[in-house]
Amino acid sequence: MNSFAPLQNDTFLRALRREPTDYTPIWLMRQAGRYLPEYRATRAQAGSFMQLAQNPDLATEVTLQPIDRYGLDAAILFSDILTVPDAMGLGLRFVENEGPKFDRPLQDEVAVHRLEVPDMAKLQYVFDAVTQIRQSLNGRVPLIGFAGSPYTIACYMVEGGSSSEFRTIKTMMYTRPDLLHHILSVNAQATALYLNAQIDAGAQAVMIFDTWGGSLSHSAYKEFSLAYMRQVIGALKRNVDGESVPVIVFTKGGGQWLEAMSEIGADALGLDWTTNLAEAKKRVAGKVALQGNIDPSILFGSEALIRQTARLVLDEYGADAGHVFNLGHGISQFVQPDAVKYLVDEVHAYSRQIRGAK
Amino acid sequence: MNSFAPLQNDTFLRALRREPTDYTPIWLMRQAGRYLPEYRATRAQAGSFMQLAQNPDLATEVTLQPIDRYGLDAAILFSDILTVPDAMGLGLRFVENEGPKFDRPLQDEVAVHRLEVPDMAKLQYVFDAVTQIRQSLNGRVPLIGFAGSPYTIACYMVEGGSSSEFRTIKTMMYTRPDLLHHILSVNAQATALYLNAQIDAGAQAVMIFDTWGGSLSHSAYKEFSLAYMRQVIGALKRNVDGESVPVIVFTKGGGQWLEAMSEIGADALGLDWTTNLAEAKKRVAGKVALQGNIDPSILFGSEALIRQTARLVLDEYGADAGHVFNLGHGISQFVQPDAVKYLVDEVHAYSRQIRGAK
Repeated sequence: MNSFAPLQNDTFLRALRREPTDYTPIWLMRQAGRYLPEYRATRAQAGSFMQLAQNPDLATEVTLQPIDRYGLDAAILFSDILTVPDAMGLGLRFVENEGPKFDRPLQDEVAVHRLEVPDMAKLQYVFDAVTQIRQSLNGRVPLIGFAGSPYTIACYMVEGGSSSEFRTIKTMMYTRPDLLHHILSVNAQATALYLNAQIDAGAQAVMIFDTWGGSLSHSAYKEFSLAYMRQVIGALKRNVDGESVPVIVFTKGGGQWLEAMSEIGADALGLDWTTNLAEAKKRVAGKVALQGNIDPSILFGSEALIRQTARLVLDEYGADAGHVFNLGHGISQFVQPDAVKYLVDEVHAYSRQIRGAK
Repeated sequence: MNSFAPLQNDTFLRALRREPTDYTPIWLMRQAGRYLPEYRATRAQAGSFMQLAQNPDLATEVTLQPIDRYGLDAAILFSDILTVPDAMGLGLRFVENEGPKFDRPLQDEVAVHRLEVPDMAKLQYVFDAVTQIRQSLNGRVPLIGFAGSPYTIACYMVEGGSSSEFRTIKTMMYTRPDLLHHILSVNAQATALYLNAQIDAGAQAVMIFDTWGGSLSHSAYKEFSLAYMRQVIGALKRNVDGESVPVIVFTKGGGQWLEAMSEIGADALGLDWTTNLAEAKKRVAGKVALQGNIDPSILFGSEALIRQTARLVLDEYGADAGHVFNLGHGISQFVQPDAVKYLVDEVHAYSRQIRGAK
């Protein structure tokens, strides 16, 4: 087993466990990204996106960049949700301006039945990065591991890339649900192994990104996305050396389904900006913490607007325990780096006021 | 004033008014469309999409095609939501495989302040089509007129075309909300004039398509989309020759905001497939009828699946008055025409059973 430095700032983990904190912790989805000049420099050095993700030294470097710059309350592994299907042999490529492509998508019965849980050794570069990042953090803030949801990675595996209408996977869902269930079952097993290996390597919390669950009907969501996230969560190591390892589930566009999402064993739910935090808090009735949920486009606004909107979001949640501040989706590459400074500063300062006043 | 044949099938209008009906009426968004071979033939004859929309003879022909083929309970004007900004002089073009483009998008203060409510005479081709369609329908089913919501057409007017992230309009929203409010105010006035002229020309119900309201935060939705739809609705003629003219509002992705939407004066709300109809009915508490909401991708499924899913949706709403069956979004060009036959047949037959059994 690895031995790591003691954690100096556990605000993020405490908020996920719904324990009192002095202020509201904040991190940002895609915080290590193209809006940062230092990220672009490292990325240029690495070559491609996947070469960056597969190089533990460079992945560590970019993971720590936003921590150094902003004093965020959590770091998140620099990687991609498609590492798992890549390890399954589907042939992942990133095409400039088109996003990810799979050379061998799962579009017929033979391909689907050939699918297997991959040997986790193929993903050792991820686990190496986790350990190296955790060591480099040296206890400053906790490290989040992550994976795509079984349904979300299936979208890419079946469509062969990004999609706006999901015609291929929905046709499979509505004509051969047995094939889709087979893919999802393999994905769920692989995702649980993958997240457990990240936890073994040093991840102190894990997040499941269900980017495309919100494209489903309310009933299909439960059958094809939520049920498999429940399977993954049920198979996770939730305790390491006496410390709980919280699990966050984020279904983009899932604001109507929070009650159902709060029942699958997650510690926290991520929310996008379409959901009112005060109402969400009532609906989940203390079962889970909440993470979110400012519109990422707010970061194109003025300093005054960023600070004002941060206060509105903090006021919506109020002084109760169980809130992690975040964007409702990944940060845009077009954001000016100073915008994040205003946001982090306001969240820290204003939430101390609210929580101190309680 | 025009004089039209008496209406033979008023099931759709009665359902919108929440009056009892013998069965659940059905129509489909984009029902006159590329999935129909007869549509593709007329479209080829017209040349471009806009040439088809601007030719009242051909627009009438395609509007009636799905009525003839399927026995749907309402016809909808064949047109596009971007006719209004086109009449404002923004220079609309449809680029093959890229969608609509505006040559003169509203991206600076000068352009925004130059914007004016267009002379409705520029849209006479739309009103001519409405009258001609109504005459050709000869009372078979009611005719629906429509427009885009002020916010949704503003998305195209500011972005200059389709967008996935809405970076330009959201930057305007968060840096110069005064400019966006000016655009929306002009759009609301123009949209009310436009819909009233459609009503004068013979439209028996009108629908406002808020395709992009769902990309907004819950608070921005109220300020930038809902408030302007309320303005439009407040300015509409709601009664023609003693007959009420129902108004339907559809915000795609707006399932979390039904309570607020039910308060703006609409007779019915359109729902996409992410919302459970039974829960939606409770939430709107009898204030409005509901229209929807099967996943359009169901039409890629087998006849058995289409029929089964139609029954599930009908059972969710139950036998109460006030349901119009529809897809949760426009029908895909890749649907096989027979799939629609199964859907219409099942909705008519099964809803007669439910409503007869009441």
